Amino acid sequence: MREKMTKISVLGNGSWGSVLGSMLADNGNDVILYGNIESVNEEINAHHTNTHYMKDWSINPNAVATGDLEKAVKGADVLLFVLPTKVVRIVAKNVRKILDETGEKPLLVTATKGIEPGSKKLITDILAEEIYPNDSDKIIAISGPSHAENVAQKDLTAIACASKDEENAKTIQKLFSNNYVRFYTNDDLAGVEVGGAVKNVIAIAAGILVGKKYGDDAKAALMTRGLAEITRLGVNYFGAKPMTFSGLSGIGDLIVTCTSVNSRNWRAGKQVGEGKSLDYVLENMGQVVEGATTVKAVHELAQEKNIDMPISEAVYRVLYEDANVDEEIAKMMGRSPKPEIRL
Amino acid sequence: MREKMTKISVLGNGSWGSVLGSMLADNGNDVILYGNIESVNEEINAHHTNTHYMKDWSINPNAVATGDLEKAVKGADVLLFVLPTKVVRIVAKNVRKILDETGEKPLLVTATKGIEPGSKKLITDILAEEIYPNDSDKIIAISGPSHAENVAQKDLTAIACASKDEENAKTIQKLFSNNYVRFYTNDDLAGVEVGGAVKNVIAIAAGILVGKKYGDDAKAALMTRGLAEITRLGVNYFGAKPMTFSGLSGIGDLIVTCTSVNSRNWRAGKQVGEGKSLDYVLENMGQVVEGATTVKAVHELAQEKNIDMPISEAVYRVLYEDANVDEEIAKMMGRSPKPEIRL
Repeated sequence: MREKMTKISVLGNGSWGSVLGSMLADNGNDVILYGNIESVNEEINAHHTNTHYMKDWSINPNAVATGDLEKAVKGADVLLFVLPTKVVRIVAKNVRKILDETGEKPLLVTATKGIEPGSKKLITDILAEEIYPNDSDKIIAISGPSHAENVAQKDLTAIACASKDEENAKTIQKLFSNNYVRFYTNDDLAGVEVGGAVKNVIAIAAGILVGKKYGDDAKAALMTRGLAEITRLGVNYFGAKPMTFSGLSGIGDLIVTCTSVNSRNWRAGKQVGEGKSLDYVLENMGQVVEGATTVKAVHELAQEKNIDMPISEAVYRVLYEDANVDEEIAKMMGRSPKPEIRL
Repeated sequence: MREKMTKISVLGNGSWGSVLGSMLADNGNDVILYGNIESVNEEINAHHTNTHYMKDWSINPNAVATGDLEKAVKGADVLLFVLPTKVVRIVAKNVRKILDETGEKPLLVTATKGIEPGSKKLITDILAEEIYPNDSDKIIAISGPSHAENVAQKDLTAIACASKDEENAKTIQKLFSNNYVRFYTNDDLAGVEVGGAVKNVIAIAAGILVGKKYGDDAKAALMTRGLAEITRLGVNYFGAKPMTFSGLSGIGDLIVTCTSVNSRNWRAGKQVGEGKSLDYVLENMGQVVEGATTVKAVHELAQEKNIDMPISEAVYRVLYEDANVDEEIAKMMGRSPKPEIRL
C-alpha cells in the first residue's frame, strides 16, 4: 500500500518552477504551484499550460496553481523555492509568519541561483536567516545543468542535491529522481550554490570570445580557467570544498551555460564582443542578463577579499569601465607564468 | 644579449608536431622536426608546408625536417615526443642508444596522449623505463584543449605542463609560452596524462547521445559524470590527484573533444547512436578512432581494479558486446541513488 502522498509546494511558477512542479506530480506527489500572476494561475488550472513561459508543453493536471501563499505553505512537507533572487527574502519572511502560526517544519529546497546584492549572501543563507535560524539542516539546494525546456522534453538530466544533513538530501533525492532526471547528493551546500550563481559571468566572457571570432581552444580554456577562479571565490569566501566545482553544479552547469545558444548571458556577451555597447545590448535583450549584475558583486568580493579572478575582473572592466576587449585579452595572456592549481 | 638558442627536436611531424615545432621556432628556438616519411620531410624543407596534415598553413622556415634520428637527438636541449602511442617505446629505445653514446641528458617532453595496450602504462612511464630510469624528474608532459588547427590560427590556447620537478616544468613553461598559447605548471604528472588518454571514450558516448537526439542537459551531464569516472580511474589506479581533473588536461580537454564536430571519436559515436555498426563506422572513418581502442584498456582496468565506471563500461558493451543503447541508458538512469563526489 502506498504511503500518504507527499505535499510539495513550488513557490514560483515561471518556466523552471512549472517544469519541476509537473515532474514532481508525475513522480506521484501532491503538488501546488504558487505564483502571483493571476492570469498564469488561471491558465494553469483551466488548461494545464503556461504558454508565456513554455510553448507546446502541458503541465501534469494534478499540479494545482494558487496565488494564496497560506494555502501553499500550510500542510506542505516540502517548500521548493524557484523565485528570482531579488524576491526570495520577502517571500521567505511571509513563509516564516505562516509557519510560526502552524508550528510546521517542512523541508526547504531552493532551485533559485544567485547572490543577494549588497549582503552578498547565498539563497540558503537567506532562507536560514529568515525561516530556520536554528534548523538550517532542513535546507537543501538543487543545482546542475538543467534547462527547463530540456527537462520538459524528458532529456536525460543530472542535478546535485546538497544539504548539511545527509538524510534530508537523500529524502529530496528520492522524491525528485525518476527515469530521466537523476539527483546526486552532496554535503557541500555553499559549493553547490556558488557555481550556479557565478557561472553567468563566465558565460558573458564566452560570448565575447565568440563575438571576437576566437575558436574551440579559446572557449575550452576560458571555461576551465573560469572554473578555477569560481573555485577560488567559493573556497576562500564561501567556505566551499574545491571538488564540488568539478561536479554538476560547477563545471556541468558552466558547460550548458557557455555552449548553449539559448543562454541569455552568452548571447549578450557575443554582442558586446561584436562591438555593441552594454546599454544597447541590455535594452534590446528584453530579458534580464543576470551575469551583468552578478559581475558587480564578484568584482567587489575579489577586490575586498583579494581573490585572483582575472576573467571576471576583465568582464567587469569591459562592461562598466569601457575597457577594450583586445587589450584585456592581451593583458590576460601576458600575466606572469602561473601554476595551474592555486586555491 | 640573447643566450645561445635552445635546440628543440620534435619527434613526429604530423599535424600537432608540425604546429608545435613551428610555434617553438616562432618563439626563437632552434627547431628540428624528425619524421620517417621522406616526402613529408622534403616538402617541409623545400616549401615549408605539410599539406597532408595541415592545409593552407606554413611552417616557420627556421624549423628543419630530417629523417635522421641521430641528427635530431644529438645536441638537443629538449626532445618533444609527438608520436602515436604505439611507436613511442621503439623510438624511445633508439633515443636511449644515441644518448648513451653522447652522455647528454636533454629534457623529455611528451605531447603524445595514450595508454600503452597490454602494459597499461602512460607515456611518461614508457619514457622513464626506456630512457631515464634514474632521471624521471627530467620528464615533462603537456596536455590541454589544443587542436593543431586552432593553434596554427593563433587561437587563444591554455595547456598544462607537468613534471615531478617544478624547475623543469617552469623551464618548459617559459620556452613554450607566447602571446597566444599560455602554459600552466602542474606537479601531478600522472593526473595530467590520464585525462587526455581516457577522454576519447567519453567523446564516443557524447556522440552516441547526439545520434540518439538527446539535448544539452544530457551532454553536460555525460561530460560531468564522465569526468567523475575518469577521476576515479586516475586516483585509484594511476595515483593522480583529484583536482588535476578539473583543470586543462581534464575537463578542458574533455570539453573540446565532446563539443567539437572535428573530433573523430565524437563523430564515430554519433554514427553508432544513429544505428550503424562499429565495423561499418570504423571502416568508413578513414582515420584511427582512439577511443574504440582505449575503451578496451579502460574496461579491463575497471574490472580488475573494481573501479566504478558506468559510462565507459556501457560504451564497451555497446561497441563490443552488441548491447542496446536505449537499454544501457535506462540501466544507467536506474542505478541506485549515489552521492556526487565519490573517489
